Amino acid sequence: MKNGTIQLDYTNILPFIPKQEITDAVDLAKDAAAALENGTGAGNDFLGWLRLPETVTDDMLTRLTEHAQKLRSAVDAFLFIGIGGSYLGARAGFDALLPSFHNETAAANGQPRLYFAGNHLSEEYHTTLRELLRDKKICINVISKSGTTTEPAVAFRILKTLITADRTQDMIVATTDAQKGALKKVADKAGMQQYIIPDDVGGRYSVLTPVGLFPFACAGIDINALITGARAMRAKILDRPVMENPALLYALIRYLLYRDKKKSIEIMAVFEPRLAMINEWWKQLFGESEGKNGNGIFPASVSLTTDLHSMGQYIQEGKRLLFETFLITTVPTQPLEVPPDDNDTDGLNYIHGKRLCDINRAAYTATAAAHCTGNVPNMTICIPTLDAYYLGALLYMFEYACGVSAYMLGVNPFNQQGVEEYKNNMFGILEKPGYEELTKKFSGSEHTDDSNRTP
Amino acid sequence: MKNGTIQLDYTNILPFIPKQEITDAVDLAKDAAAALENGTGAGNDFLGWLRLPETVTDDMLTRLTEHAQKLRSAVDAFLFIGIGGSYLGARAGFDALLPSFHNETAAANGQPRLYFAGNHLSEEYHTTLRELLRDKKICINVISKSGTTTEPAVAFRILKTLITADRTQDMIVATTDAQKGALKKVADKAGMQQYIIPDDVGGRYSVLTPVGLFPFACAGIDINALITGARAMRAKILDRPVMENPALLYALIRYLLYRDKKKSIEIMAVFEPRLAMINEWWKQLFGESEGKNGNGIFPASVSLTTDLHSMGQYIQEGKRLLFETFLITTVPTQPLEVPPDDNDTDGLNYIHGKRLCDINRAAYTATAAAHCTGNVPNMTICIPTLDAYYLGALLYMFEYACGVSAYMLGVNPFNQQGVEEYKNNMFGILEKPGYEELTKKFSGSEHTDDSNRTP
Repeated sequence: MKNGTIQLDYTNILPFIPKQEITDAVDLAKDAAAALENGTGAGNDFLGWLRLPETVTDDMLTRLTEHAQKLRSAVDAFLFIGIGGSYLGARAGFDALLPSFHNETAAANGQPRLYFAGNHLSEEYHTTLRELLRDKKICINVISKSGTTTEPAVAFRILKTLITADRTQDMIVATTDAQKGALKKVADKAGMQQYIIPDDVGGRYSVLTPVGLFPFACAGIDINALITGARAMRAKILDRPVMENPALLYALIRYLLYRDKKKSIEIMAVFEPRLAMINEWWKQLFGESEGKNGNGIFPASVSLTTDLHSMGQYIQEGKRLLFETFLITTVPTQPLEVPPDDNDTDGLNYIHGKRLCDINRAAYTATAAAHCTGNVPNMTICIPTLDAYYLGALLYMFEYACGVSAYMLGVNPFNQQGVEEYKNNMFGILEKPGYEELTKKFSGSEHTDDSNRTP
Repeated sequence: MKNGTIQLDYTNILPFIPKQEITDAVDLAKDAAAALENGTGAGNDFLGWLRLPETVTDDMLTRLTEHAQKLRSAVDAFLFIGIGGSYLGARAGFDALLPSFHNETAAANGQPRLYFAGNHLSEEYHTTLRELLRDKKICINVISKSGTTTEPAVAFRILKTLITADRTQDMIVATTDAQKGALKKVADKAGMQQYIIPDDVGGRYSVLTPVGLFPFACAGIDINALITGARAMRAKILDRPVMENPALLYALIRYLLYRDKKKSIEIMAVFEPRLAMINEWWKQLFGESEGKNGNGIFPASVSLTTDLHSMGQYIQEGKRLLFETFLITTVPTQPLEVPPDDNDTDGLNYIHGKRLCDINRAAYTATAAAHCTGNVPNMTICIPTLDAYYLGALLYMFEYACGVSAYMLGVNPFNQQGVEEYKNNMFGILEKPGYEELTKKFSGSEHTDDSNRTP
């Protein structure tokens, strides 16, 4: 356990919602949290994620780490096959915790390279990747509860041939259901090593199960520290009143902005490109949990300062339906200072000798104040430093806040019925047995009415 | 000139806006386009981009290409320093037109690697990049109208030392103002090779100037084909009535969705990860042009099918303030088919032998129909194939549509006053001479009031 902690700064909320109004509403968050803890809310058969910081044992962490270490010394590259919650957590963690340009510098640093597949249907991507990995020593970790989700199942069929039959048992690791499903069957038959996705943990809440933990360990990330951070965050959430509780207060403020101030878009804003995939993980978590019944905050994101030069104008002066959450941290690195220049033609000598991280921090302070002036309420999640411990704390904090937030909104945070519609259409178009009605419906669509299309 | 053309399919708009309503409104788009062409609208001193397809000469294209070719054979890597419009166009073009994993496979393919810097203030990124490029043969293209924008100016100070003084004239290329500005002065003094950013072309409309063209040529992209595509699109836009005009009709439909149907968010949705940066370029173009006076459509994006497993639920069933624009194309690549499997445990045999690009196309058709059913009006921009010609056509089409769109909305598409507020704050915080008032305002902010922050 570390001394530092993730804090929520809500100074730039108060011009829009007086503190008293927030204080008066704390019971909303408290009740929602109680529903989570007591299992009395909607979707309460999917609450396994809630106690993962406690239920993930040290033995399990040791086993995962030792297995990954053994593989790390044996391979050139890892290939992770999964989509949605079986992709975003691992990807977000890699980007956040590994140095920029990891794959390009991996060989020189004695590190395995890290790739993803099955997270879309791009023919070019998968073709190029297969060529790239041919004749390399690779380990595949295929991550799928059912084993039948189209994208990862297609990618696995194609890419598993990169591993010869005699190496399947060592070099393909399946993260899947304990008992049932296609991938379970395949893994059993081939004698693949396996990790379990618990039944009571949905995809977008699964990053602290082997779904995320095994890839993290394969990347050399300290999963003990990660879980320790999540434990510390859980302890804090259970211990603190709402106004001192970053998870519950974040959930409550965004709810009040939505309900009372008609703010329909939340922009998650990071100041390090390495955090951009945390935005994507967060979007799935909140968008898929809350976007139901014609309701929910639309989750959007920016990577700053890059996007101050693109989305900055809209945020400052566009339609006032936005609020913003900044994710601020310090990335461990060697100091890099602005060098002096005798001529000062570019006019930067006023910051010569300053570290880039300090200029970046000034940009954050400047932006938060500017957007507040522009009537964009904003709050800041302050992370002491970007490491495995605080990443674990952050991920758990967001999961908890999401459960609380969805309960306040009155929706089930743990289902996602809306994703079936396009899947069913697709099965129909692809003539999957059992979807004949939809096949018929779409059979004319190849010969579409060109009158609704510019020539 | 090719036979194919970019088309706009608006079939899934008609359940929400009857065709007659669109037809009745065509004069709005026609008048806005006339204001552009006649230079009678707001910001008419920034209309240089409009005629770039005509004013970019073959001589200029030849000079850029030959220069780039010479450099390509002399370097291991190119480094492009720029932000906003001096970054996004080049980046979007690289991603769209180069194979996946370009930098990892570049050496083996005899291609130079391609890097960006100065597009944010990450200390870790720039430190790692400097190490990565040390002792490599590189060429720097620094792109900045003024030469004083903080991010690229800081990056240029730091990274230009990667090139020894005796190579400056050959290996640093400045794309900047013709007459004035800090970078112009530095470039003149050091005898750097230079390209001009025209005075009447704003950053986000500059991709068809040397801002985008020189990087494209350095990446081996056929800029003749790119400009030919833009010329064909301009000819089409000028020739066709609104209902047959992909640029004007796109602008008109999104305007009607905003004005009459209260759709405040447009989601640009691509089905190839290589197009994700086109989304980012588009966001700057439209967000910065339209997001003014408390008005404008919020530009968001998804990369599919990846994000069907994250944002899909929200799009299908969340708050109904969305419309969607699909960007559909075919990426040239070797065919990749789903292999057969004797056991069919994963249940995929019903698509065995199908190419991934066809499954991906089925996913698009399925998604467009599903989202229409879910009350998300959507249209599709159909691009025959992903190459330089059609990329040029697409970029010009979006620029034109954006100008028309902003005029219909009643805003100046060519200014961006809103980005000054944070910059001024930042100068104050960093104690830049001339910003003493703001320095004073922020001087207490280091010792922030912790009572508005969770402990």
